[in-house]
Amino acid sequence: MILRTARSFVKTFQTRNSSNVSFIGLGQMGARMVKNLTSKGQEVKVFDIVPAALNSVANLKGAQVCSSPKDAAKDANIVITMLPTGDIVKDTLLADNGILKGIPKKSLFIDCSTIEPKMAQELSKISKENDVRYIDAPVSGGVTGAEKGTLTFMVGGCKNDLKEAEPVLNKMGAKIFPCGDIGAGQIAKLCNNLILGITMIGTCEAMNLGIKLGLDPKLLTNIVNVSTGRSWSSDTYNPVPGVMPDVPSSKGYEGGFSVPLIAKDLGLAEAAALSCGTPLLLGALAHQIYRALILNGYGDKDFAVVYEFLKGQSK
Amino acid sequence: MILRTARSFVKTFQTRNSSNVSFIGLGQMGARMVKNLTSKGQEVKVFDIVPAALNSVANLKGAQVCSSPKDAAKDANIVITMLPTGDIVKDTLLADNGILKGIPKKSLFIDCSTIEPKMAQELSKISKENDVRYIDAPVSGGVTGAEKGTLTFMVGGCKNDLKEAEPVLNKMGAKIFPCGDIGAGQIAKLCNNLILGITMIGTCEAMNLGIKLGLDPKLLTNIVNVSTGRSWSSDTYNPVPGVMPDVPSSKGYEGGFSVPLIAKDLGLAEAAALSCGTPLLLGALAHQIYRALILNGYGDKDFAVVYEFLKGQSK
Amino acid sequence: MILRTARSFVKTFQTRNSSNVSFIGLGQMGARMVKNLTSKGQEVKVFDIVPAALNSVANLKGAQVCSSPKDAAKDANIVITMLPTGDIVKDTLLADNGILKGIPKKSLFIDCSTIEPKMAQELSKISKENDVRYIDAPVSGGVTGAEKGTLTFMVGGCKNDLKEAEPVLNKMGAKIFPCGDIGAGQIAKLCNNLILGITMIGTCEAMNLGIKLGLDPKLLTNIVNVSTGRSWSSDTYNPVPGVMPDVPSSKGYEGGFSVPLIAKDLGLAEAAALSCGTPLLLGALAHQIYRALILNGYGDKDFAVVYEFLKGQSK
Amino acid sequence: MILRTARSFVKTFQTRNSSNVSFIGLGQMGARMVKNLTSKGQEVKVFDIVPAALNSVANLKGAQVCSSPKDAAKDANIVITMLPTGDIVKDTLLADNGILKGIPKKSLFIDCSTIEPKMAQELSKISKENDVRYIDAPVSGGVTGAEKGTLTFMVGGCKNDLKEAEPVLNKMGAKIFPCGDIGAGQIAKLCNNLILGITMIGTCEAMNLGIKLGLDPKLLTNIVNVSTGRSWSSDTYNPVPGVMPDVPSSKGYEGGFSVPLIAKDLGLAEAAALSCGTPLLLGALAHQIYRALILNGYGDKDFAVVYEFLKGQSK
Repeated sequence: MILRTARSFVKTFQTRNSSNVSFIGLGQMGARMVKNLTSKGQEVKVFDIVPAALNSVANLKGAQVCSSPKDAAKDANIVITMLPTGDIVKDTLLADNGILKGIPKKSLFIDCSTIEPKMAQELSKISKENDVRYIDAPVSGGVTGAEKGTLTFMVGGCKNDLKEAEPVLNKMGAKIFPCGDIGAGQIAKLCNNLILGITMIGTCEAMNLGIKLGLDPKLLTNIVNVSTGRSWSSDTYNPVPGVMPDVPSSKGYEGGFSVPLIAKDLGLAEAAALSCGTPLLLGALAHQIYRALILNGYGDKDFAVVYEFLKGQSK
Repeated sequence: MILRTARSFVKTFQTRNSSNVSFIGLGQMGARMVKNLTSKGQEVKVFDIVPAALNSVANLKGAQVCSSPKDAAKDANIVITMLPTGDIVKDTLLADNGILKGIPKKSLFIDCSTIEPKMAQELSKISKENDVRYIDAPVSGGVTGAEKGTLTFMVGGCKNDLKEAEPVLNKMGAKIFPCGDIGAGQIAKLCNNLILGITMIGTCEAMNLGIKLGLDPKLLTNIVNVSTGRSWSSDTYNPVPGVMPDVPSSKGYEGGFSVPLIAKDLGLAEAAALSCGTPLLLGALAHQIYRALILNGYGDKDFAVVYEFLKGQSK
Repeated sequence: MILRTARSFVKTFQTRNSSNVSFIGLGQMGARMVKNLTSKGQEVKVFDIVPAALNSVANLKGAQVCSSPKDAAKDANIVITMLPTGDIVKDTLLADNGILKGIPKKSLFIDCSTIEPKMAQELSKISKENDVRYIDAPVSGGVTGAEKGTLTFMVGGCKNDLKEAEPVLNKMGAKIFPCGDIGAGQIAKLCNNLILGITMIGTCEAMNLGIKLGLDPKLLTNIVNVSTGRSWSSDTYNPVPGVMPDVPSSKGYEGGFSVPLIAKDLGLAEAAALSCGTPLLLGALAHQIYRALILNGYGDKDFAVVYEFLKGQSK
Repeated sequence: MILRTARSFVKTFQTRNSSNVSFIGLGQMGARMVKNLTSKGQEVKVFDIVPAALNSVANLKGAQVCSSPKDAAKDANIVITMLPTGDIVKDTLLADNGILKGIPKKSLFIDCSTIEPKMAQELSKISKENDVRYIDAPVSGGVTGAEKGTLTFMVGGCKNDLKEAEPVLNKMGAKIFPCGDIGAGQIAKLCNNLILGITMIGTCEAMNLGIKLGLDPKLLTNIVNVSTGRSWSSDTYNPVPGVMPDVPSSKGYEGGFSVPLIAKDLGLAEAAALSCGTPLLLGALAHQIYRALILNGYGDKDFAVVYEFLKGQSK
């Protein structure tokens, strides 16, 4: 059984808090992940290049603000990164005041960012050359999962390294999937988000069609959710305002998973598909739709806003 | 609460078997629906234009073979049709030996076929002009649902008419959704299948990508099924051979929901969208992909066979 | 040689002006076509349901305003229609004060509207039942071609009927293509516009890409126009403002061929493709893109405005 | 006036044959380009890693076979490459027996390969660091253009460097477009081929539709070619067998521009679009269609073979 819940590790992490952990990248996700680490008794040395982001965790008990990745990585057994792109992770690793300048030999570097699988392999190679161990551990679950500590980690890399990472990861998440070799975590993440990006648009198209033809949105949702059209996009994150409470569509498409982020992930999926000659017919189109939305005023909205675009708007 | 299960009607249909019921159209779906009607004590007068189809139910206790729609409809309180297209339903209604020539005034005509919402409205009008009541009641659940008597009925039309239909529908299905006016059942059906047709292709694209990049199909399925990519297409009807037992993908894509049927439904959705100026970006593309598959040797396979097309084949 | 130019008919129409001609439908196209007819010496009885449209030609020498299609068709040898949809043509034919109520037996009915090929066949059948001859003769060339009398007519129907129509058609156009049986003119028109709708978007995508990457729009146009990317959309109707004078893109996308009109034609192409199971992968997507543009504020612009949508806009 | 024809340089290249020219990459394109160089009196040192390719030009008068890129580049004023991918060009430059090991300081390196614009910039930087001048000069015109010496060169880089290259380029081509800075030649090439890849599929869809609905292929071509659907894909390289002689579609889709090559170019366009956030709705879909064709038995055919796929086939 691959699925492992936080529960089974409860005992573990109560008794194994001795690791020196660093966390670099304190954005929407990272700050919440650090909050969970510290609230569960893990001391963390933190860094972000943006002062406001760094300040947002400065008052957490157990968080120790550092002046650079190098500074944060000093004496760490585990260094975690949660950054926007693969290039930024690489820079954070290699810069003059970067992680590799501070991290002790044999330590474990866990990259939770969503990046190109190939970049994960390159980061692993660089780490190895510097006698540092590396696993890729991108997450799903979004800001809500980060907040509640229920993220899913998809991990690529050596099983022993994952074993060592588990006590820490379990303070931030509810499930850990070992996916295979280095980069496999990234691949699993991209495949999942590829389905997500497509299914959300499909759900928006069908909901919009039904509503324009006179169906009640909640009724149509109820039908779909017990039928073959059922998906996370319809039963958990419905894109039509008012159908479900507490989802972005019911809050002006604020918060949530922004259009540029899903566009980024579909771009990574497309690049991975290109590398192996695999066609993504709907995936490529979904990718372009999100990119067109960014350019037409929806760049700061949750990705379910594609419903608004399909519904149309007066100008 | 809109959802109504068969359970709540158990008492009802044990005490109300007095209706004279006719059933016209004994294909993959219809024959199984008749089997459920008769096995639950409902006598049914049956007809199909194909002798072999008619013979397939001839030996059922309670089934009475008729020589025409007119013959079958004689003395019926309820006439049910389950036919391939709207035009065929219309012909079956209006032909010289058609339903309207036999059905008594005030009787109820229930069309379970999947057809254009506009055609449902036309059939309703024709029925009304002949003093016959009409509801549209297309189903979801496929051959399996028809076999097990667990279909979902999506019903458009007058609530009193639906009330009268329920005891009969509940012998064939597990859920009934009143959807609104005449044609609303068809609209709900099309919207659901529109999502289905899109999500299945998206799932095939992502599974194919992950597998080509080295992921284990079952592992990737496990991850998706607890993540945001989860859908009926991944957790109930997985398109990759060997991931789930007893689904068409694991049986050479035999049986199931054929490519021409999903193509037909997406065509109806597209026509409905055209009528109200609603764009279906992914839906239109999915529609065309299924049509291209029909022309390239996949016309007799389950619609999940799109996975095979994406994976490629030697020639 | 299929192509026939107006030139070869010059002698003909100077000597054969004896036909009684009626023209119904005086919109952007129809009014200009009537202007050419009258300026070349052809008297025309005209009608439009919109008083303003009717007034727009009232002062033309040779135009005789009528009170209904029936009134206009009285005594006519040739009745021409130029109307927005097939349903409107049918109504104009069959209404109480419609064409069939006035047109003499054996006369020729020429429909220049762009409509469904199937509707053309239905109109032909209705005409035949009323002892009226029918040809479909949709045009290409747009408002400019109508203005200059350089339209191309694509004609479906009997060759003798076309022969009779030619002297009149040549006063409005420069080329006539006999395409085959009834409806064939419509099919040719739809196929041409299907390519047009796709190629225009493709040209917009590539021009936008090149410009964003720093190329000069005119230079890129020059290169494309002598290379394999050359098309009418790049060398005659370039979608980028400022590249060519006197095209809609250089005049705020005003005038020209509006987004709803290309969307209508692609919808007809899609319906025709559906009827014969032919896939239109890019065509279906292009269709939906134009439909999405209508809903997002571009409904009154020339179809080249897709360039603006791809380029993006601040809100 | 940007367009420059070979004619204006006739005098020039008759008097300036003193350059030492090397040519590396003797595939379908390169071998024909070398043939034109030598037949016009230019001596060329040649190399290809494939012995058969090298042998194919060994007997040309004026061609001198070399043992490595380094060997070929020795004493050269101008080194030309025509290679499959940017990575291969980079390797050919940097390898132990690569160009940079042999080429004299201040010499001019002309890359005629179609590669990523970013790679062109990287190659330029590497060249500069080694005191070598660099221009990118990808071509259009295909094998026929290479054979006849009528290629179009799209050039990025310094104008003085282009001036020096012109006498040599004009022996192989008919037009030279200065496009701007380093990489601009590549960008122009990709934009043109992006339109080409889309327009060809659109033309195939429409021709297939018209033919299925009964139109004569040549008639439909004639109509399109004088109408708004006109393009190089319809009037010069028609995809329907038998419409034009001497094009790949009339020769079993043999020869010509193969599906993997257009797929490669669309992949480069997509990557370039991704880098600047520009959406390619039809372009992305066209790209995926060609990729799906490669996987389904069309990988060795001319790209117009998409017509066959749309038409369908018995299996």
